[in-house]
Amino acid sequence: MKIMNEMRFSNLALNRLFHPRTIAVYGASENTNKIGYLQLKALLDGGFEGDIYPINPTSKKIAGLTCYKTIEDVPKEVDLVILCIGINHVENCLIESAKNGVKAAIIFASGYSEIGSEGIEAQNRLKKIADQYNIRIVGPNCVGLLNTTNGLMGTFSPGLTNIPLGKRREVGFVTQSGAFGVLTYIAAAQRGLTFNYFVSVGNEVDVAFTDVIEYMLHDSKTKVASGYLEGEKNPEKLRELANYALEINKPIVIMKSGRSSAGSRAAASHTGSLAGADNIYDGFFKQTGIVRADDYDDIISFSKLFSSGKLPAGRNTAIVTSSGGRGINEADRCASYGLNIHVLNEQIQKAIKKNIPNYASAVNPIDLTAAAAITNPELFLEPLKILANDPETDTIIFTEFPMNWDENTPSLQEFVRICQESDKFIFVTTFPLEGMSIPKGTQYLEDHGIPVITGDLNPIRGLAKLVDYSEAYRKAKKEKAQPKQNVKITKNIRHLLPENRTLSESQSSEVLAEYGIHTTKHGVADTEEKAVQLANEIGYPVVLKIDSPDIPHKTEVNGIRLNIASDEEVKKAFQEIYESAKKHCPEANIHGVSVQEMLPEGIEVIVGVTTDPTFGPVIMFGLGGVFVEVFKDVSFRVAPITREDALKMMEELTGHELLKGVRNKKPVDQEAIIDVLLKVSTLVQDYRDDIKEIDINPLIVYENGVTAADALIITK
Amino acid sequence: MKIMNEMRFSNLALNRLFHPRTIAVYGASENTNKIGYLQLKALLDGGFEGDIYPINPTSKKIAGLTCYKTIEDVPKEVDLVILCIGINHVENCLIESAKNGVKAAIIFASGYSEIGSEGIEAQNRLKKIADQYNIRIVGPNCVGLLNTTNGLMGTFSPGLTNIPLGKRREVGFVTQSGAFGVLTYIAAAQRGLTFNYFVSVGNEVDVAFTDVIEYMLHDSKTKVASGYLEGEKNPEKLRELANYALEINKPIVIMKSGRSSAGSRAAASHTGSLAGADNIYDGFFKQTGIVRADDYDDIISFSKLFSSGKLPAGRNTAIVTSSGGRGINEADRCASYGLNIHVLNEQIQKAIKKNIPNYASAVNPIDLTAAAAITNPELFLEPLKILANDPETDTIIFTEFPMNWDENTPSLQEFVRICQESDKFIFVTTFPLEGMSIPKGTQYLEDHGIPVITGDLNPIRGLAKLVDYSEAYRKAKKEKAQPKQNVKITKNIRHLLPENRTLSESQSSEVLAEYGIHTTKHGVADTEEKAVQLANEIGYPVVLKIDSPDIPHKTEVNGIRLNIASDEEVKKAFQEIYESAKKHCPEANIHGVSVQEMLPEGIEVIVGVTTDPTFGPVIMFGLGGVFVEVFKDVSFRVAPITREDALKMMEELTGHELLKGVRNKKPVDQEAIIDVLLKVSTLVQDYRDDIKEIDINPLIVYENGVTAADALIITK
Repeated sequence: MKIMNEMRFSNLALNRLFHPRTIAVYGASENTNKIGYLQLKALLDGGFEGDIYPINPTSKKIAGLTCYKTIEDVPKEVDLVILCIGINHVENCLIESAKNGVKAAIIFASGYSEIGSEGIEAQNRLKKIADQYNIRIVGPNCVGLLNTTNGLMGTFSPGLTNIPLGKRREVGFVTQSGAFGVLTYIAAAQRGLTFNYFVSVGNEVDVAFTDVIEYMLHDSKTKVASGYLEGEKNPEKLRELANYALEINKPIVIMKSGRSSAGSRAAASHTGSLAGADNIYDGFFKQTGIVRADDYDDIISFSKLFSSGKLPAGRNTAIVTSSGGRGINEADRCASYGLNIHVLNEQIQKAIKKNIPNYASAVNPIDLTAAAAITNPELFLEPLKILANDPETDTIIFTEFPMNWDENTPSLQEFVRICQESDKFIFVTTFPLEGMSIPKGTQYLEDHGIPVITGDLNPIRGLAKLVDYSEAYRKAKKEKAQPKQNVKITKNIRHLLPENRTLSESQSSEVLAEYGIHTTKHGVADTEEKAVQLANEIGYPVVLKIDSPDIPHKTEVNGIRLNIASDEEVKKAFQEIYESAKKHCPEANIHGVSVQEMLPEGIEVIVGVTTDPTFGPVIMFGLGGVFVEVFKDVSFRVAPITREDALKMMEELTGHELLKGVRNKKPVDQEAIIDVLLKVSTLVQDYRDDIKEIDINPLIVYENGVTAADALIITK
Repeated sequence: MKIMNEMRFSNLALNRLFHPRTIAVYGASENTNKIGYLQLKALLDGGFEGDIYPINPTSKKIAGLTCYKTIEDVPKEVDLVILCIGINHVENCLIESAKNGVKAAIIFASGYSEIGSEGIEAQNRLKKIADQYNIRIVGPNCVGLLNTTNGLMGTFSPGLTNIPLGKRREVGFVTQSGAFGVLTYIAAAQRGLTFNYFVSVGNEVDVAFTDVIEYMLHDSKTKVASGYLEGEKNPEKLRELANYALEINKPIVIMKSGRSSAGSRAAASHTGSLAGADNIYDGFFKQTGIVRADDYDDIISFSKLFSSGKLPAGRNTAIVTSSGGRGINEADRCASYGLNIHVLNEQIQKAIKKNIPNYASAVNPIDLTAAAAITNPELFLEPLKILANDPETDTIIFTEFPMNWDENTPSLQEFVRICQESDKFIFVTTFPLEGMSIPKGTQYLEDHGIPVITGDLNPIRGLAKLVDYSEAYRKAKKEKAQPKQNVKITKNIRHLLPENRTLSESQSSEVLAEYGIHTTKHGVADTEEKAVQLANEIGYPVVLKIDSPDIPHKTEVNGIRLNIASDEEVKKAFQEIYESAKKHCPEANIHGVSVQEMLPEGIEVIVGVTTDPTFGPVIMFGLGGVFVEVFKDVSFRVAPITREDALKMMEELTGHELLKGVRNKKPVDQEAIIDVLLKVSTLVQDYRDDIKEIDINPLIVYENGVTAADALIITK
């Protein structure tokens, strides 16, 4: 509810940015090298629908428009000001504008937070002005804002202006990098995708990345909200927006840079050392249904596919091609992305075979051969007619489509009609286009909502993402219908979590046990006699481990003895462990030696938590031992997680099969793992201000049930 | 030596194809819908340097050229005929041509091997004609052959004609798919890369994929030989060519399709079941230094980088950019491909800082900001001047280069001069181009040998491949300088390899032992008493295993007992194993029970051999147990392998670290693994007609030495 109210507020304010009736350009200039000139020209060339007022104290007229000395002189109320002026003048002009009723501003100037402390101060002053005068600011240090549906070309960048606009404009784009944004805008336009909104948010002093996503989600004309992200400051909001987007079936496509900058954190826990910024973002995107793009090519092709409005019903994909080679390549790529190039059933094959030349192939991919594309292009229609009625086919890809068709070609008209009537997801892949000269046939297809994707094989990745998204969307719908089965515990255990400490194993176990996680039977002994007594209570065989908050890695100090079977052995092990620990860590505060039941063999997994500076508590799951250490076969999700998230965390491991039983072993209790993941999620949500890191390593999983065989908790 | 002679022969013959003085076009036509018209027009428009003779019994003149009824009427000797005629006329025309001294032909017609048995017969007849009359044939079922350096546009495909030609034409391209080849040709031209040769080999009745590669390797004007491959029939030749190419430092770039069609073979060995066509090709490309491309984008960008003639000295890469976002992306991508975005040393940073604005960043990536690109593009020169003399920098990437420069811009001229004088590998990445209108500045850079790569991030993959190639090239050079240290054994063990059998473990071990591979001490007992006697000879503890050629997977019949410590236990185990095997496999021929020493714990690996229908014996290496079963962490090479290959096979495993010692363990004896791999390679080379599959699973590796703990050999 809260977010909906906020949205209405912010959207109202942003509306002035995207739909101003009047614009004033500070620093408007006749000098063609100045951004004040370029900006004015962009608005004029773009055919902005409202009034434009150049502001410049020394000019009378610029580009045919009357120039004003100050904003006070402007005859109408100004909705938006664009500041094409240096940093030294920004604050004054902004205040002056606000005092004259201006509600929105774009600031291009650099020299703010990006240059360090001095700039941060200046930026904070901007923030204050924005709050005090209730004026929304895009920038500073940005390339600007476009609304291509009303001619608002709020930019000085020559890369963004003079680009022909496509007919369908239903994808919005917001970027944290100006230059990368411009590049994406151009590339998209070259491939027939014109963004309706383009926002370079710059330093985000006021209007943030998420604000723009929010605006686009609420804008009925926008079908896909896309963006380029370097780092999100408000992941909570992005998460809520993503949930909402999934609800209304409006995909969010984001390219997140910084994939490899995993960063090296000094972390005591395994989980902490494995958690890089990138794999946390990856988990976050997966759990929120945000579609991750890897490059601007992805943004373009994913957006094209996603904005078609159809969702594939499943993974069965048929390919109709005029190039055998290309067909094989696309089929290969489909297989590698988990799509299914299904064998068409005999009846379908027969029906297709009847209508294509004998040298063409009717198995999937259906290869009509190059000859067809040149001499007999209407052949493309025949397989479509049949596949459109094949219940086993979910998606049809037409590849290397004849490009000499145009809007008057009857076959193309019929092609479009069948596509529109069919519930199949259908798109066309084709030769790379020649720059801006988009073939007429392509344009006709695009205008009728059939995506045409030019270039290399990445539409296949796009299709795979769309199928994943469709599944996420359907699942979200189903989940919504069912009551959420979340683990509710919320116990008062704050006394077990003293500030800024590394808890010993037995202390850590106690916390887990309070949250219903099964731990080993154990007790801590400070003398040999106590250890023997505990061993007898627990029952042989037992394990002895050093218990000290200062020794998180017990193996390294030779602090563990397994499979101890008698009183004598207990005494010996107690001695040895104690001495070894004292020798290795003379300063350590040793609570004693923990005596534990010796657990039977099972599959070792690791469940962990780390605290990310952006996302807060993050849950990790992986296979234990060398799998986590060498193969780094782990998955992450941002807390809190759902049952579905927990399931996916297991399934996405390369070694997932190990849990299902290999080499004559029975499958382990995956439900019990999910239960632990959900309990840990609840625990760190309840105590997010107290818990910094958790390692349950190993959690031993059996055919029935699990036991946390070792645990480490670090508090804040 | 053999290959060199063959080359001279085939190159002489192919020369007629690529450099004919006269061409006759069978089926030349005035009907603009016929390929006979399109072909003639292509030759005329292409400005072919020699004489062109249309052949058509019913026309007098076509397109201004005198038409001839038959080839006998043509006044000059014809070097090349292009058959634009249906399959029914092909054989007659071909024979007629050959009788009139024609040495080469291009056949477009379809209806040959691609349509099945009838077509195969027709194709065999073509083969006969080629051999009998000594005429070289390109095709049938192909798109044709181009030589863009002499106007030989031997094609009917409108996609290939009327494409402007770039100035530098130093990359050749051969394709097994016509349509995919056309697509690649167009895309390459759009990005400023014009192939010098383009050959669509079609059904390869005569001129094969490798023949064209061979021709390009010997052609002094070709700097890179590239190709699109669906399946190579002569891998031996490709291997020899690849070795030769590495020797003369002329990279071969191949896109191999069929990545995912791993194919499911019924194989008794683990190795056989894991060997897919694709990972064998992958191994083959790695060991031969062939650069694998994944898409036509790769072919283009790799070829551009590789044809520059320079090789990066190492992995240190500096990025100079006008887009911070793009810089970060490229840096990320570099890291993920193992390239190093090195921290520039302080002196270098200081020097750069001095010459760029204060808001620009001098750390790597060096971000000059978008403002620089627009208002002050000559800033790009400053970091170049400094980095060109930085001994720590190997490669410099200039990204988002100012595109409004042209050949008269002094800064661009100086840029080129510095690049040419520098030993650094330098290239430019930039905005996607607008179709054929390549900016003048880009053209100027390309003309001066500085690659400009437009579009997405794949140049970074290209750079990584180039660095790998450079390393392979330098290694090949070094290896050539040293004598080859190969394992030479060649023992007569044919009697141990009876035809078409699955050998029992002890039989398989014997074969391995003959080739110097350390196996377990063992003997086969057919009675309890014999088993006890063997156990005492070997020394306790021992292992008992069922020994039968009919039971390759002993665990499945409960046929293994480990850690047996006494005579009594031996007797019991013998009984149980024998009975269990009899029960599970009543038909099996049981040799007895193998009594073996119980090996101490070590790291388990798998060494295997499978026979590939294309490549023959292929060697596999992987980590044992679940690593091979679940993670499929294995590597392949085609036999015979070198020491270097064996080393790389270990290094490329995800779990390679396990061999180097983790969790307080010492590193294992990697030299001993290499020794086994080389011995196995020699064994299967010596007996390639006898051995079909080998599994050594596990081979147990210790700190010193290895032991084959189990073995399986299947013969042909």
